[in-house]
Amino acid sequence: MSAIAELSMTDLAGAIARGEVTALAAAEACIARIDAKDKALNAFIRLDRAEALEAARAADRKRASGGALGPLHGVPMAHKDMYYREGRVSTCGSKIRRDFVPKVTATVLERLDAAGAIDLGTLNMAEFAQNPTGHNAHFGDAHNPWNPPYCTGGSSSGSGVAVASRMVYAALGSDTGGSIRLPATICGVTGIKGTQTRVSRAGVMPLSFSMDNVGPLTRTARDAARFMAVIAGQDPKDPTSAPEPVPDYEAALTGDIRGLRIAVPQEWFFDGADDVVVTAFEAALDVLKARGAVVERISAPSLGPVCTAVAVVSRVEGATIHANWMRERAGDYAVHLSARLFGGYALPANYYLEALSLRGPLLRRFCAEALGGYDIVATPTLRTRVPTLAETDVDADPANWQRFMAVSANTRPFNYLGLPTISLPCGFDDRGLPIGLQLAGRPFAEGRVLQVADAYQRETDWHARVPG
Amino acid sequence: MSAIAELSMTDLAGAIARGEVTALAAAEACIARIDAKDKALNAFIRLDRAEALEAARAADRKRASGGALGPLHGVPMAHKDMYYREGRVSTCGSKIRRDFVPKVTATVLERLDAAGAIDLGTLNMAEFAQNPTGHNAHFGDAHNPWNPPYCTGGSSSGSGVAVASRMVYAALGSDTGGSIRLPATICGVTGIKGTQTRVSRAGVMPLSFSMDNVGPLTRTARDAARFMAVIAGQDPKDPTSAPEPVPDYEAALTGDIRGLRIAVPQEWFFDGADDVVVTAFEAALDVLKARGAVVERISAPSLGPVCTAVAVVSRVEGATIHANWMRERAGDYAVHLSARLFGGYALPANYYLEALSLRGPLLRRFCAEALGGYDIVATPTLRTRVPTLAETDVDADPANWQRFMAVSANTRPFNYLGLPTISLPCGFDDRGLPIGLQLAGRPFAEGRVLQVADAYQRETDWHARVPG
Repeated sequence: MSAIAELSMTDLAGAIARGEVTALAAAEACIARIDAKDKALNAFIRLDRAEALEAARAADRKRASGGALGPLHGVPMAHKDMYYREGRVSTCGSKIRRDFVPKVTATVLERLDAAGAIDLGTLNMAEFAQNPTGHNAHFGDAHNPWNPPYCTGGSSSGSGVAVASRMVYAALGSDTGGSIRLPATICGVTGIKGTQTRVSRAGVMPLSFSMDNVGPLTRTARDAARFMAVIAGQDPKDPTSAPEPVPDYEAALTGDIRGLRIAVPQEWFFDGADDVVVTAFEAALDVLKARGAVVERISAPSLGPVCTAVAVVSRVEGATIHANWMRERAGDYAVHLSARLFGGYALPANYYLEALSLRGPLLRRFCAEALGGYDIVATPTLRTRVPTLAETDVDADPANWQRFMAVSANTRPFNYLGLPTISLPCGFDDRGLPIGLQLAGRPFAEGRVLQVADAYQRETDWHARVPG
Repeated sequence: MSAIAELSMTDLAGAIARGEVTALAAAEACIARIDAKDKALNAFIRLDRAEALEAARAADRKRASGGALGPLHGVPMAHKDMYYREGRVSTCGSKIRRDFVPKVTATVLERLDAAGAIDLGTLNMAEFAQNPTGHNAHFGDAHNPWNPPYCTGGSSSGSGVAVASRMVYAALGSDTGGSIRLPATICGVTGIKGTQTRVSRAGVMPLSFSMDNVGPLTRTARDAARFMAVIAGQDPKDPTSAPEPVPDYEAALTGDIRGLRIAVPQEWFFDGADDVVVTAFEAALDVLKARGAVVERISAPSLGPVCTAVAVVSRVEGATIHANWMRERAGDYAVHLSARLFGGYALPANYYLEALSLRGPLLRRFCAEALGGYDIVATPTLRTRVPTLAETDVDADPANWQRFMAVSANTRPFNYLGLPTISLPCGFDDRGLPIGLQLAGRPFAEGRVLQVADAYQRETDWHARVPG
């Protein structure tokens, strides 16, 4: 691997800004990685090779002409194939939208373009972002870069693989039940979803609009801070986007976490956890303690009602969005997805509203009991070791449903609660697959979450390891 | 009737401010009207006689001491019994909440208090605000002040009766499908609902939160302008309240409507209309034309889809709010109400979301086609002559359902569309019952709606007539 490909996103942006590396060299380094790796891993749905190289050359010309440079000037990226760009096919990982050409461009893509990022193409994903593993019946499963028979996590499977394998410096994922954090933990990279409504969803395929989040998968917490600062903030095109101003997330990365209080809920998040995961998680807590954080075990409110509510809300909203296609083209979905969507049509409307109406009270209770005296709640991102694609393939064998659903157990509640949550690598299991640390903060405290993640990464190098 | 009781709300407020009338005299005039009239009409659920007189004396002392006076200083009012005041029973017109004592005070009551209004007590209403006629099985039906066997309109039945009978100078109603505008038209007063989210709903009994509106019934459009300016505007306690600033509505009442464009949709709003209503409506249009408005007949988009969507949304939201009571105390509702609520539990959640998701497109279409080239859409408020209580009593005979539901046909669509809409008196039918003119405007154009209503009232005296 070239030295350029090893850089983090922020280091590359700095090197390009200083003229030490050209955008073209960075794009070529990424394309070399894609050519070398992606036949086996299947992260890309479409590589826009010629356009990307031309955009990189234009970025270099712009720098040479002395124009003002954005904070991501010349950085090659690619994004989950559900971010619309006018005139370019966005498959949403589906057969149904295999030829869909949107008439709008997602606000987040416009903001990345304005920041100078180079768009290499579109990335593999679960069909309509609806599974937590990375299976895809239409474009082929994505494969774990650390060990291809293992799953990648989903639904942002290609984003996890592409960032882990250094095919790109960062990638947009989307997270409705863990779809950023799961491929981040399972592929061994950093992934953050902000507070619900923190990032505009205009021009993004909807899945469950009450819980959908846009966010990046990156190599480091610092990269995530830079990326979030570019994409976050109110958007007139998305009336649900929050008006809260966006702070300078990178300025929050002081490395100093002395006195910060971290809560570790003792119930529920560890039910059925694998020992190797718990051991890595405890070691991660020790690192944070060594840097001065206060770690305490707490008894948090049960998340049982939260999980029931998540299931109702996500099924109903998914079923509604897919109603016309489910009437006319149910056979064009993967079997497990049409089965899941069908379940959403049997739910009475008052159950849906009751599930939504619990959101405020449960959030207030969680904030009071778990975050009242604490800055951060820490859990493992995934309770178990990474499963294989075969043992979570529910189309092949419905007996795999329980394992399939268990993948997102620890991530889902934070979508319902809407809290900013990050996953970052904290070790490897006995089969060489990554383990992730999940950190959640108070509403709109993305900066705090990033600060703790960055402090951890100053002491560890899990995030710097690259699959062979 | 005393000369004081004949004043409009704004005239009374001026007289009190100038020291020509005391707040005590105004309160005593109202109480005299209540004592004389309410045994037969049943507008009040509870008259707080002693407290009101004491509050009026305090208002007079405050004026005597030279303190700053609010725009409603000393004006006696009473409100639909669903506006919570901490520590005071709010029955919501129901058996279930006959003894309910809220722990909060509605923001709109706080704003009226701050403006100096005197609160005389609580007014009759449909059970949980759920019928358009004024029937109430628990507190007795309210009776039309022009002819007691006739219905009052609902659900703000007591508000319509009390303002029409000059028992109070103004009253809060609430409007989810016409519940301000119907008692206004049927009792012969002025009633306005603002744009959806224009007025805070904090501390107000919910009915169908997507379509609930708070607003006043008053004697004149000028009174409505003063009242709306007091209660409208963003409220931190109601996150759905709109941030749009509140203009000076009274300043909009120039009397000059030359060149304003008024659209009269030819379809749907006149289906099954009584001739006497159409004749009065046409005469009202002639008055507006004589003052210089341009009146044109238009072909508006069908409101059929709107009415279906209204039914789904209101039933589902009502069923959700009442779910626990319907499980445990269904027998404590009037038969027609429990039957209506039961219907809400059979609706699939995706129908609800589809009904809500049509709201934006249908509103944009209505605004483009009906309000694109026009300032106002005018229709009769009620298509038919006022029905009797007996012929709309669905508990006595389910065959009355169609007549019962038809009452709100012309008002309901404007709740779904969320447009500011006023009803004002424009004549009397051949049985001596009032007829109403309905005017709807563009989102947040309350001032324009009030301006046209006020101009009409400068030429006519329907609003000044008092039932004998």
